[in-house]
Formats: sequence, structure tokens, C-alpha cells
Amino acid sequence: MLPQFRVKQEEAINVSGDDLMATVAGIFEKMGVPAADAQVGADALVLADLRGVDSHGVSNMLKSYVNGYTSGQINPRPEMKIVRETPATASMDSDRGLGVITAPKAMELAIRKAQDVGVGMVTLGNARHLGMASYHAMLALKHDMIGICMTSCPPRALPTFGAEPRLGTNPIAIAVPAKNDHPFVFDAATSSVAQNKIEIARRLGATLEPGWLATEDGTPIMEELTSVPEKYHMLPLGATRELAPIKAMAFPAWWTYWPEC
Amino acid sequence: MLPQFRVKQEEAINVSGDDLMATVAGIFEKMGVPAADAQVGADALVLADLRGVDSHGVSNMLKSYVNGYTSGQINPRPEMKIVRETPATASMDSDRGLGVITAPKAMELAIRKAQDVGVGMVTLGNARHLGMASYHAMLALKHDMIGICMTSCPPRALPTFGAEPRLGTNPIAIAVPAKNDHPFVFDAATSSVAQNKIEIARRLGATLEPGWLATEDGTPIMEELTSVPEKYHMLPLGATRELAPIKAMAFPAWWTYWPEC
Repeated sequence: MLPQFRVKQEEAINVSGDDLMATVAGIFEKMGVPAADAQVGADALVLADLRGVDSHGVSNMLKSYVNGYTSGQINPRPEMKIVRETPATASMDSDRGLGVITAPKAMELAIRKAQDVGVGMVTLGNARHLGMASYHAMLALKHDMIGICMTSCPPRALPTFGAEPRLGTNPIAIAVPAKNDHPFVFDAATSSVAQNKIEIARRLGATLEPGWLATEDGTPIMEELTSVPEKYHMLPLGATRELAPIKAMAFPAWWTYWPEC
Repeated sequence: MLPQFRVKQEEAINVSGDDLMATVAGIFEKMGVPAADAQVGADALVLADLRGVDSHGVSNMLKSYVNGYTSGQINPRPEMKIVRETPATASMDSDRGLGVITAPKAMELAIRKAQDVGVGMVTLGNARHLGMASYHAMLALKHDMIGICMTSCPPRALPTFGAEPRLGTNPIAIAVPAKNDHPFVFDAATSSVAQNKIEIARRLGATLEPGWLATEDGTPIMEELTSVPEKYHMLPLGATRELAPIKAMAFPAWWTYWPEC
């Protein structure tokens, strides 16, 4: 985690992971989520915090999930369905279930398929927020498999030289077992910074680094900012405008629905 | 193609693709390559030229392949073997065959597997130069499939802030059918520029753009260069040092051997 995102020690109230998990699982259950699913949701959120990914942890995300459940936007008891299937692939409808909880089920199916035929690839539609993508990718590790998790997101980042957001922050997570070493885990947005980091910065009053945001007219902000501007666009992952001509990047998106991401 | 890589019209001798293919196939056959394989090699090299990817076309690559065949480094009549296999995957030994010619065979196997189980993923070891990666990825298009081709390469690019090359130029090609539109084809090195483009620039006396190369001590060269320095390192794909902290990228490499790439 970047130092500016750390809560000041004098303001911090330390809570054990286990206690936090029990609280979060209780909140999920209060929202109508079945107990086993609530455990998965709590595990994913608390693990994000324990790994230093506060942007996708309890303090930054749970409130929006509670709002989603309360407003009916997120379905607490989704009936996931396989829409199409081959031995190595499946396309699932997650019935507006929270991705944090439904993606592990899609991943389980992908892992079973990989055990059977060598590769498993499952897409999840009609989904809600994914949480920390590496949580799902890492589920493959205990089966000694490489796990990959990606999602598409609503357009929030500018194409280089653009003034209108046309690119999602579409994160990519890859987890690779490494025998006796710690596994290799990569997880990053394809925008210059994760959208949720900007929201943390707003909450904490943290500084923003050069090259993270652009002004409303698309001009990259190349100096440090001490507060989040009221209106801004996100910049894509990659180089400056000056180095741009050879820096176009594209990724396939395996998720198909993104009301919030 | 960047304008500085275009041969000047007054120096150009135009040759039809078909004529060039016949010549190139003849040269491959002269090297001991079977006729059908020679056709594939010629097709791949000429298509690179026709698509404007001169770096991986006849003029820039064929000579090094002829040298490889002549020195015995490349095997003109490889016996490809499947080393391990599952319904969706295979690991092949390509017996020192030229990747330009062996990768399409690996791709055919991957396509058959995808037809059977939904995904096919084939790795190729003991391989030689891959040529234009998108040639192989695009083979999936006529089966209405997404094709992906990647290779690892010897370390030539610096990690950001590094002075020793530790990263391959590891290209990634993705071809996606688009119904009635032209397919989407992406093909790029993960270094700031393809190594072979630097060799073209040396041959043509072309200018080099800022951010492509670093000096021997690792300092990024951020101004335009009018000639290729005698000693240099390649820079990784991504941003400047100033924007670096959030710009680390990592990719899985599906190829396992890279004597030249």
C-alpha cells in the first residue's frame, strides 16, 4: 500500500482479523445472505485488508454493498445458473449476486473443469461488484493451479489523448504457485490507479500522484495533488502522452456486466 | 508502421506478395525444409510484410533464419512430439524447428482441442524464432475462435530503475473475430519497442523515439536519437521512471525456450 493511504497510527483502532470477520459476516447475514455465503464475503473483504488492499477491504467497500442489498440492486440469495457449457468452459448467470461471493463459486467450477480437462474458464454475467480480483485467482493455488481473474468495468478511464472516458478500469489478477516459495500474485487495474483508491484518498485526504488523473477536458495532471478534484477523469495504465504512440494496450474482458466495479 | 521505418519511395523496388512468397518458399526448401512447411514459413514472413510489420518480414528475418539453418542451430525437418497432454492442453517439443513453421502446428492442435472441449492451450519448447506472433493467433479466426499467442524471450529489457536487462521483450498477440467487422488483432512486445525494430532502424538509419532505449548504465534516453547507439538497453513497456511506482506489469509466459526471439 502506498504510504499516503495508511491510516495514521494515532487515529488507528486495531481490530483482529477474526473479530472483523465475525462482524462482517454478521452484517452480510443481516442483509439476508445465507450463512455460508456471508462467511465467504467476510473472508474476501478481510483478506483484502490483511493484504494491504484497503481499497477493496471492509472500510472502503462494505457500506456500498449494504446500500446495494438495501436498495435491491444486489440479490442476497441469487440462484446461479449455467447458461452454456463445454468441458473446459461455462458461461454463468449470477442472478445479481455480489461478485465477491459468486465469483468463488465460478472459480470452483473452473477449477473442477481444469482438474478434468486441463483448463477451466468460466464467465459470470448479471453480476455485481467483484471485490479484490486476486482473492478469486488465489483460490486456484491450493490446487497447485495458476488462477486468473479479470473483470470489465464501466468506462471511467480516458484513452490517451481522449477527453471522454471510454475504458474500464478492468483489473487483471494472476496467481501462480511457486513450489516451496510464496506464490506469485499480481493484481492491478489497467487504469493508472484503481478507482477505489481515489475514493480512499478522498476519505483520508491523501495526496494523489502525478499521472493518476486528468482534468475534465482530458489534460493529464502531471503534478502531485493534495486533494481529489471535484470533477476528474482517470488515466489509462501506461506512459505519458509524449511516449504514447507505441503504448496502446488492449485486454480481453471475460466479464460481461458491470453496474458498479 | 511508424513513418521512419518506411523505405523511401525512390529507393523502393516493389515486388508482388505472390512472387515474394515463391522466392521465400524456394529459399526455405533450399535449406532442407519440406515443401509444405516452406509454404507456411513463406506465408508467415510475407504476411508480416503485407501487414506493415517489416520487423518480422522477409527483409529483416529471412537472413537470420538462413544463418540458423546453415549453422545447424535450426532443424529444417523437426519431429515435433507431444510431451504431455490433457483434453484442453498439450506441451510439445518442437525439436529445434523454426517457430514460424512449428507454431502453426501447435495452434492447429490447440484449435482441435478448443473444438472438442472449449479451450485449447499448447506450449512449445525447444523452439526457435516465432516470427510475427499475430500470424499464429490469427489462425483461430477462420474457426470463429479467439486466438492468443505469446512467447518468452531472452532478457533484453531493463526493469524500471534497473541497469541490467532482466525482462524479455515477450510479445503478446490476440486475435478476436468480430462478426461482420474486421477482426480485432493486437500484437505488441512488452518492451517499449520490439527488438527487431531497433535492428531495422540501424539498417535504415531511422530515428528512435524518446523512451525506447536506455544508456548502458540504465538511464532512459528521453530525447529522439538519430542513430542506434553502439551499446544500449531496451526499456520495458510502460511509463517513465517518474510515474513508475504503480506501473509494474507481469505476464505469464507460455513458451519455455528462447535461444533467439
